[in-house]
Amino acid sequence: MKKELDPWSNQLVSDYEYLFTEFGLQRMSPALVKALSGHRLYRRGIVFAHRDLDKFLLASEAGKKTAVMTGIKPSSEFHLGSRMTAEQIIFLQKTFGSKVFYCIADVEAYADNGLPFEDSHANAVDNVADLLALGLDPENTFLYKQSQNMHVTNLANIFARKTTLNTLEALYGHQNLALYLAVLTQAGDILAPQLEAFGGPKNVVVPVGVDQDPHIRFTRDLADKFKEEFGFLAPAATFHKFFRALNGETKMSKRDPLGVMTLNDTPELLKKKLANTLTGGRATAEEQRRLGAEPEKCVVFELMQYHFYDEDADLKKMESDCRSGSLLCGECKAIRLKHIQDIFKKHQERKKKLLPKAGKMLEMPIAFKKK
Amino acid sequence: MKKELDPWSNQLVSDYEYLFTEFGLQRMSPALVKALSGHRLYRRGIVFAHRDLDKFLLASEAGKKTAVMTGIKPSSEFHLGSRMTAEQIIFLQKTFGSKVFYCIADVEAYADNGLPFEDSHANAVDNVADLLALGLDPENTFLYKQSQNMHVTNLANIFARKTTLNTLEALYGHQNLALYLAVLTQAGDILAPQLEAFGGPKNVVVPVGVDQDPHIRFTRDLADKFKEEFGFLAPAATFHKFFRALNGETKMSKRDPLGVMTLNDTPELLKKKLANTLTGGRATAEEQRRLGAEPEKCVVFELMQYHFYDEDADLKKMESDCRSGSLLCGECKAIRLKHIQDIFKKHQERKKKLLPKAGKMLEMPIAFKKK
Repeated sequence: MKKELDPWSNQLVSDYEYLFTEFGLQRMSPALVKALSGHRLYRRGIVFAHRDLDKFLLASEAGKKTAVMTGIKPSSEFHLGSRMTAEQIIFLQKTFGSKVFYCIADVEAYADNGLPFEDSHANAVDNVADLLALGLDPENTFLYKQSQNMHVTNLANIFARKTTLNTLEALYGHQNLALYLAVLTQAGDILAPQLEAFGGPKNVVVPVGVDQDPHIRFTRDLADKFKEEFGFLAPAATFHKFFRALNGETKMSKRDPLGVMTLNDTPELLKKKLANTLTGGRATAEEQRRLGAEPEKCVVFELMQYHFYDEDADLKKMESDCRSGSLLCGECKAIRLKHIQDIFKKHQERKKKLLPKAGKMLEMPIAFKKK
Repeated sequence: MKKELDPWSNQLVSDYEYLFTEFGLQRMSPALVKALSGHRLYRRGIVFAHRDLDKFLLASEAGKKTAVMTGIKPSSEFHLGSRMTAEQIIFLQKTFGSKVFYCIADVEAYADNGLPFEDSHANAVDNVADLLALGLDPENTFLYKQSQNMHVTNLANIFARKTTLNTLEALYGHQNLALYLAVLTQAGDILAPQLEAFGGPKNVVVPVGVDQDPHIRFTRDLADKFKEEFGFLAPAATFHKFFRALNGETKMSKRDPLGVMTLNDTPELLKKKLANTLTGGRATAEEQRRLGAEPEKCVVFELMQYHFYDEDADLKKMESDCRSGSLLCGECKAIRLKHIQDIFKKHQERKKKLLPKAGKMLEMPIAFKKK
């Protein structure tokens, strides 16, 4: 039974198996995991699937130029999901020398959220400072706003010519025109790095959450349809699992601000959020000491596994202390909180210094005022 | 019975009456005709209907800034239809000091005709030289390519948010996505002159062939929907009648090159085309001398009336010579040919000198090569 992914819901996908059999996702082979083992997200299977990543790596090994493409809708602060994608592009940039193409989707922020370009500009500067603080090399990055990159909108128009409404409806259901247009624009974002203006056809990888796979499939089909005209190679993609919201119920999403950590959170706010985070603890302290707790149910564990413990040894110790019952959830949270607060503090210090640079990297919005 | 206009067919509309009753076109009042009587197209009722032109004229009389908007798809040379629209914008520019916004629809030429930007650039330069030779004041004109005007594409994206597929289907029938996108982009072209970047809300008039009224209605609805956000005034429009192809059968269209005069036609080609033009002549010379010919059936007469005789006296003489039977069609054609050849010769001389200026007015296409 085919169950299509929905890039716009915040439904939590927990069974990933059918994606391999129904939609042809490729599993991460041991060789691929090894090639990327320098980062916890690949080593721990959080990035769990791909399309054509092997081709991307072969091209890179052969000394060819490669690129990594991603973007952000500048409608809010960086949350942990944005950070996870950012970590991947920065790691790929460092490891393979790939050029990063980073799209600030301000047109989408306007169309979806009614956020005027002037307003999304401030968010964009904040987001870019986060990227720089996380280690993005600005010298090997093409950073752009959708509202200012005609290459992308022109491609969207050209792609529309070979896109039927039926195709879009099959992928996304019956949606409004703005959404279909956003899909075409995203395809433009992903394929633009292969235009002559950016050095021509090349292997590009797009790291995404698995719910974005419909976009990837749609874009790969377009690459094929316009292969003769533009020489496009089908873009590669990697897919990471959803991270749950802190309440453990839905995937982490900007739409649920209470369940999300953002990179600007203060130590106090982090403390409050962590206090409310779901654990795998037992009903009573006595029971927990006797049976141990359940890390696989615990969002605090998932936080450290996905986001905050780079060292496998740290994670292993956390897990064994949890399972053995030697550490109760309150004590555990206090230890993790300190670690997370420390990471945020250092990040925010770096970021503060980088804000002026981020501002310079982004053109001011073109005059497009509301009345 | 509602009969929707089709902006993409080359069907000839000959009964215009239902457009007033069914679609709310406004008749040109004597006062409006008088205000515009300096140009044959208004004086002779070729521009026969409008929407809100009275408001445009009132604003102009009140000393407010006004604008005229039109454009061309740079897929071929200027034909007489393009010239007719160009004459109107130039007349309005001269008469009311309105700023002309002129769009080179190269994205549409790419999407519709597969014409790469590099190729349409040459056509665009040629088209703009025609505009200058016809008298366009470049100092009071904003000339742009769709592929380079982010204001327009950003508006198209914003408009998509409040446009349902049902609305587009009702107006245009079930069409492909590229066409719907072109419609949104055209709405962006028409409303962009009212953005703050171009001086804010103002009265804008769009001279079009009557088959384009669905675009006008659609854009006026959008202006209303986004009135609060951008302060848009509903754009005004004037509507001209179709000019028949030289064979007298369909409206003049780029799609039928044999039935069309283009402004680059040589004297020999003009001669050939005019020789093949439908007349209102009788079966025999004897019959024609006795009964006179029928100018209302004659495309040569229509040519002079619509396009080539500015002086009403010249047209009147042509008509009376025709009706009286004193001038046979062959003799008549020889006289008109000389007049048309003369106009073309002078135009082409002016144009030749203006080609370098036209080239400078248009930015070279952004790097967007085919593989």
